[in-house]
Amino acid sequence: MSGRFPRVDALSKACGAERFAADHYPEGCLWAGAFRPGAAHARVLAVHTAEALALPGVLQVLTAADVPGTNLQGIVYKDQPVLCGDVVRHAGDPVALVLAESREALERALELLRADLEPLPAVFDPREAMRPGAPQVHAGRKGGNVLMAAEIRKGDAARALADCPVVVRGTFETPRQAPAFLETECGVARRLPDGTLDLTVSTQSPFRDRFEVAQALGLDPLSVRVRAPYLGGGFGGKDGATVQCLLALAALHADGRPVRMAWSREESFSAGYKRHPSILRCELGADRDGTLRALRCRMVLDTGAYAHLGGEVLELGMEHMAGPYRVPDLLVRGFCVYTNNPVSGAMRGFGVAQATFCAERMMDRLAAKLGLDPLELRLKNVLGSGEENACGVRLTGSTEARACLTALRGHPFWTTRRAWASEAPARTRRGVAVALAHNAMGYGGGLPDMAAAKVELTEEGRFRVYCAVSDMGQGNVGGHAALAAQALNQPREELDMVLPDTERCHPSGSSSAGRTTYTFGNALLKACAAMTDKLRTRAVLFLLCDDPASLALEPGRVVWPGAGKSVPLVFMARFLPRDDRICVAEFVMPVAREVSASSRGFVLGFPHLLFAYSAHLARVELDELTGRVRVTDYFAATDGGGVVLPQGFEQQIQGGAAQGLGLALMEDCASRDGRLLTPDLSTYLVPTALDLPEIGSLAVPSHESSGPGGLKGVGEVAMDAPLPVVASAVEQAAGIRLDAAPLTPERLLAALRRTRKKKP
Amino acid sequence: MSGRFPRVDALSKACGAERFAADHYPEGCLWAGAFRPGAAHARVLAVHTAEALALPGVLQVLTAADVPGTNLQGIVYKDQPVLCGDVVRHAGDPVALVLAESREALERALELLRADLEPLPAVFDPREAMRPGAPQVHAGRKGGNVLMAAEIRKGDAARALADCPVVVRGTFETPRQAPAFLETECGVARRLPDGTLDLTVSTQSPFRDRFEVAQALGLDPLSVRVRAPYLGGGFGGKDGATVQCLLALAALHADGRPVRMAWSREESFSAGYKRHPSILRCELGADRDGTLRALRCRMVLDTGAYAHLGGEVLELGMEHMAGPYRVPDLLVRGFCVYTNNPVSGAMRGFGVAQATFCAERMMDRLAAKLGLDPLELRLKNVLGSGEENACGVRLTGSTEARACLTALRGHPFWTTRRAWASEAPARTRRGVAVALAHNAMGYGGGLPDMAAAKVELTEEGRFRVYCAVSDMGQGNVGGHAALAAQALNQPREELDMVLPDTERCHPSGSSSAGRTTYTFGNALLKACAAMTDKLRTRAVLFLLCDDPASLALEPGRVVWPGAGKSVPLVFMARFLPRDDRICVAEFVMPVAREVSASSRGFVLGFPHLLFAYSAHLARVELDELTGRVRVTDYFAATDGGGVVLPQGFEQQIQGGAAQGLGLALMEDCASRDGRLLTPDLSTYLVPTALDLPEIGSLAVPSHESSGPGGLKGVGEVAMDAPLPVVASAVEQAAGIRLDAAPLTPERLLAALRRTRKKKP
Repeated sequence: MSGRFPRVDALSKACGAERFAADHYPEGCLWAGAFRPGAAHARVLAVHTAEALALPGVLQVLTAADVPGTNLQGIVYKDQPVLCGDVVRHAGDPVALVLAESREALERALELLRADLEPLPAVFDPREAMRPGAPQVHAGRKGGNVLMAAEIRKGDAARALADCPVVVRGTFETPRQAPAFLETECGVARRLPDGTLDLTVSTQSPFRDRFEVAQALGLDPLSVRVRAPYLGGGFGGKDGATVQCLLALAALHADGRPVRMAWSREESFSAGYKRHPSILRCELGADRDGTLRALRCRMVLDTGAYAHLGGEVLELGMEHMAGPYRVPDLLVRGFCVYTNNPVSGAMRGFGVAQATFCAERMMDRLAAKLGLDPLELRLKNVLGSGEENACGVRLTGSTEARACLTALRGHPFWTTRRAWASEAPARTRRGVAVALAHNAMGYGGGLPDMAAAKVELTEEGRFRVYCAVSDMGQGNVGGHAALAAQALNQPREELDMVLPDTERCHPSGSSSAGRTTYTFGNALLKACAAMTDKLRTRAVLFLLCDDPASLALEPGRVVWPGAGKSVPLVFMARFLPRDDRICVAEFVMPVAREVSASSRGFVLGFPHLLFAYSAHLARVELDELTGRVRVTDYFAATDGGGVVLPQGFEQQIQGGAAQGLGLALMEDCASRDGRLLTPDLSTYLVPTALDLPEIGSLAVPSHESSGPGGLKGVGEVAMDAPLPVVASAVEQAAGIRLDAAPLTPERLLAALRRTRKKKP
Repeated sequence: MSGRFPRVDALSKACGAERFAADHYPEGCLWAGAFRPGAAHARVLAVHTAEALALPGVLQVLTAADVPGTNLQGIVYKDQPVLCGDVVRHAGDPVALVLAESREALERALELLRADLEPLPAVFDPREAMRPGAPQVHAGRKGGNVLMAAEIRKGDAARALADCPVVVRGTFETPRQAPAFLETECGVARRLPDGTLDLTVSTQSPFRDRFEVAQALGLDPLSVRVRAPYLGGGFGGKDGATVQCLLALAALHADGRPVRMAWSREESFSAGYKRHPSILRCELGADRDGTLRALRCRMVLDTGAYAHLGGEVLELGMEHMAGPYRVPDLLVRGFCVYTNNPVSGAMRGFGVAQATFCAERMMDRLAAKLGLDPLELRLKNVLGSGEENACGVRLTGSTEARACLTALRGHPFWTTRRAWASEAPARTRRGVAVALAHNAMGYGGGLPDMAAAKVELTEEGRFRVYCAVSDMGQGNVGGHAALAAQALNQPREELDMVLPDTERCHPSGSSSAGRTTYTFGNALLKACAAMTDKLRTRAVLFLLCDDPASLALEPGRVVWPGAGKSVPLVFMARFLPRDDRICVAEFVMPVAREVSASSRGFVLGFPHLLFAYSAHLARVELDELTGRVRVTDYFAATDGGGVVLPQGFEQQIQGGAAQGLGLALMEDCASRDGRLLTPDLSTYLVPTALDLPEIGSLAVPSHESSGPGGLKGVGEVAMDAPLPVVASAVEQAAGIRLDAAPLTPERLLAALRRTRKKKP
């Protein structure tokens, strides 16, 4: 499977034939839209709907009173109303839902809607929100604004730090990053005559969506069907309910007509989920030779108005605070805090991108303080297979972090770094740096990370693979096709790939957490093995062979090489009823069983057993006049286990690095009093191809024995290192330490000015 | 599983609630019956149907011209017309099929039917049939009347015999035995509006029946659905088409109405399948100490007018000719020959009952000649595990024949045999004897012995087991329930047992050959293991448990003992779609791979790898005045592997022994010129409970590691020893050697007379 194959979705996407959820315009569909008053925190005294309802083409204006169930959404904590009743808690909160015959009527109705609001005191800084007397985002909530306070403890970090000959300290801040997917949150829904609520949505978690919708609207989850076509991007922002409950509510009031909802870009920015802004404080102690001894840190995340996956992001971030290094004593405290800001949630890197900024910059600081080469310092401390990580987990899986670093050590960008820097043009500073990231795979301890794959021999004698996990663009459908094609010994173009559909596929969790291809792929391989076994055993009757072991599944047929006989699958399929043409198999990701660290305050998902690793190398140029940082060259060496699809692997690394460079250089959903200052893509900048260097990718030799085809998930790990590597390279270039991301020209110019002032 | 449980079918059968095929009287059903002219061999010049057709209530009189397909039935060779056209070959051959509104109308029509027949020369003795110039049963057939001529050869038997210090010789004859089941051949059929031909028949081979019907009538086999309720007895006589094709033909002409056909007892005797009469000639050579050296024998079977399974019966009989003994040099020649007698076919013991008569009587003869104890002679030569049997197969399965014999050695019937004989009342002779039988399991080499079992978790959270093999009374449904109950850890009364139905179950072969519970049970255990695995893995989501291995399937629920949590199956079932609630698994019986004997003329089914063993001990009394033999006491020690159902095991042994005693003492479908002299149960006698002794049964400790619950098939082995043990006991009692079975009073009186004449 080492060759390069076109993505299975390449042609249909390139020629526009692939129908994303956004491409669904069912005949006679209604248009649904939410009215969001825009206050960060306010009591809702009244919603005036009469004027809008009077508009021609406006069918319904629904409010919280029309929501039949709990009216609460949320993956772990259900705290987010489908439509707000008494209170709005952030500027994107909706109070009404309009159903109209046309987009125009919908827009006019949304303009006519008014709500009487009584402003409530609001809080926008998580540190302030934690203080006694701070305005309460969820009034009366036990625990106040602190959604989660947690701790990981191994050994005695305080004592160890006190003993350390060298201690470095730092405080870091990372911004609110938007997923900024091409396809905004959208979908269509329809209530069928049999009562089924049939949703086609852009979602990373179709199976969980059923329960979200059912609970919020008081329905039987089995009456909700969710289909997930290819997503036009997800990055975590579509893991959880976005349009689902609103759409379903609309469909309940649409008299059986289909309803479409697609958020505008502005709505996506104000109401969609974003990366948690973080504040990280850290002390790292080491011996004089650079051997790490102890780490103590504190992570504060701003989850915005609702929990979403805030607690879980905090947990994963905390688990990664030490980087992929040996640290005997560790104390990590974390707080995930409600504010009246937009809602934070899952996003690629899921707390790890934040933690890695801190962890890697601390390594640089330590190297500087000790006068050590930063790459050698990392090599000295990096974890290897069989070692215990900072959270007390024995790394029994593939652990090739050292190989990633070693690949950089000999890279020309690294070996020529001084010469290259010295050849900088006028008014340009150059720097080269490395950073290393690890990123856990899967849901983690306590939370079953399961998938169930189904393979069918169709009546026509072809194989159909039921992909139960969304493909948000990362290409897992192609990965699954490659795995199944090899396991079934069929050409991959002969496989029919079914996209997720809760009616046809089986629960397999979300497309997230670097788990998708690993977990589902393992279930799929098991199903393919069962299918192969079944077909060879079934073929004995067709071939009059008394030993299934002497038969082989080959393209389109089962062959008995010894007898020179074979039976076509199309012939066998005719005689096998459906029960006999399907194989369903399950897989549950292994978790760490014995952990030497203790944790407190965690709910689920700690710790993890398997990690991907990626070491990044960046060359940057800083323009002294504009403060603009240009990443001129970039290289990532990654341990993602075995490579099933070389092209897909590379694209994941490139995409992750690009999104990480966006975080490093420009992406920031800045807000004032809870209102975004960057409400659209003309103000919220993401890197384009022109802003990015060639991103070289090397997959270091690795094989995760528990993974399908030896693979691990590589969707996230490339996201984590770009911010620290760029910050480090900038420090190399200009001696500027910027501990708050992104490294915008404004911040760099200010820092350059400060440097100049200090210098003379 | 060692306790005694009531049979799952006990209550419904005892109270008459169980619906056998014979109990089906669909509303508005038509009655179908065959017209059988009764000539043993004749050209059919005309069938006069007009008179019958003119009867009120007679709808159709069909002849060969109305059969749309090949009009040929047969399991291996298709040589038996559904309705005869040009020629009838035995007295039971049908030439017309009547459809009538009532049983009365049917009977009157059958009385009115006449055929113009031109008698053809006929042959009734298989030895005559083999001679050149004999009348040809199938005119123009290549090979003439010899259906199969075959040979098994190991070493050089002729040379070895010439070298043997002791050689004994014998010639034996066994009769035509009728299965004499309570329920004659019967069923109902209907053509459904969608074209499906829906048959409910008393059959041992529902899946094969589809193909029989389809080919004979020119239909798509998938358009034929066959259901097999409990059978009121089968014994082999319902393995193959009896009513199936006639019923299906009737249904094709019934305008969608259901049709019922049930053979009368007389029809069952004349047209049904019977045990092959055999003539066996044998030379057995040994050393002076009784060590067997060589065996040469010849087996001739009378298959009657059609092949049915004649070739396969011959093969199996030949394979068993040496008994379960070490024989270094072997030559067995066999011939299966057409005659104009009633059709022979499968019957419990399948050639082995015939062969065992010869093999065991030869051992007795050898013991007598050498002055050895017959039991000790057997112990001296009996095969053990790992040894090579007479046909060159290494016995890698459980082989506890020695333990069976040893159990008899210490039995009081044996140890007191001389005293008991000496205490015989006046005019009574007493004798005690032993015999040993082995009986192969499964279809044998070359013929896949496969089963496919399906287990379903129903929507109601119960388990449903799809039994794809017929239960002809041997109780395999109960055995399968016991296996599934243990594997799924559920009370067996909570299992729904589905009886064979080609639409709902999956191809699993016939109920025959001691394979039924072994092969299907293995598939079932595999399906249950997959179901258990699936449910534990599925339950992780319900219980929020990250390790399926810590969950257990318990009655009605999946339990997480460590957490004190559980989820009811009924709850899980609601969330699992059907694809996810079924597990289908297949099993193929292992066959011998390396065989040191060579065979010639065999088609399929040779050799076998696994055998059951049974040693029988009988005490008989011979009445000198009446010639009647009474078996007063009987005991069988059997190696049937592990015992899953003690009661079922014992019943199989008792039933087999009873049927074997019928063969020994009275059962004989005597015929003259192809017409049965015993056309019904008032002339064909079978032993009743009053004719039989208590039959004691001991299961010797044994475990067949490849078997479900360690079991082997025990349906046949108990059938094989009664004839030789009774003949031997009679010889012990009166010095009479009767080598032709059954040992009727007539034969015994004649022999006694001969003995008396000789004596003085």
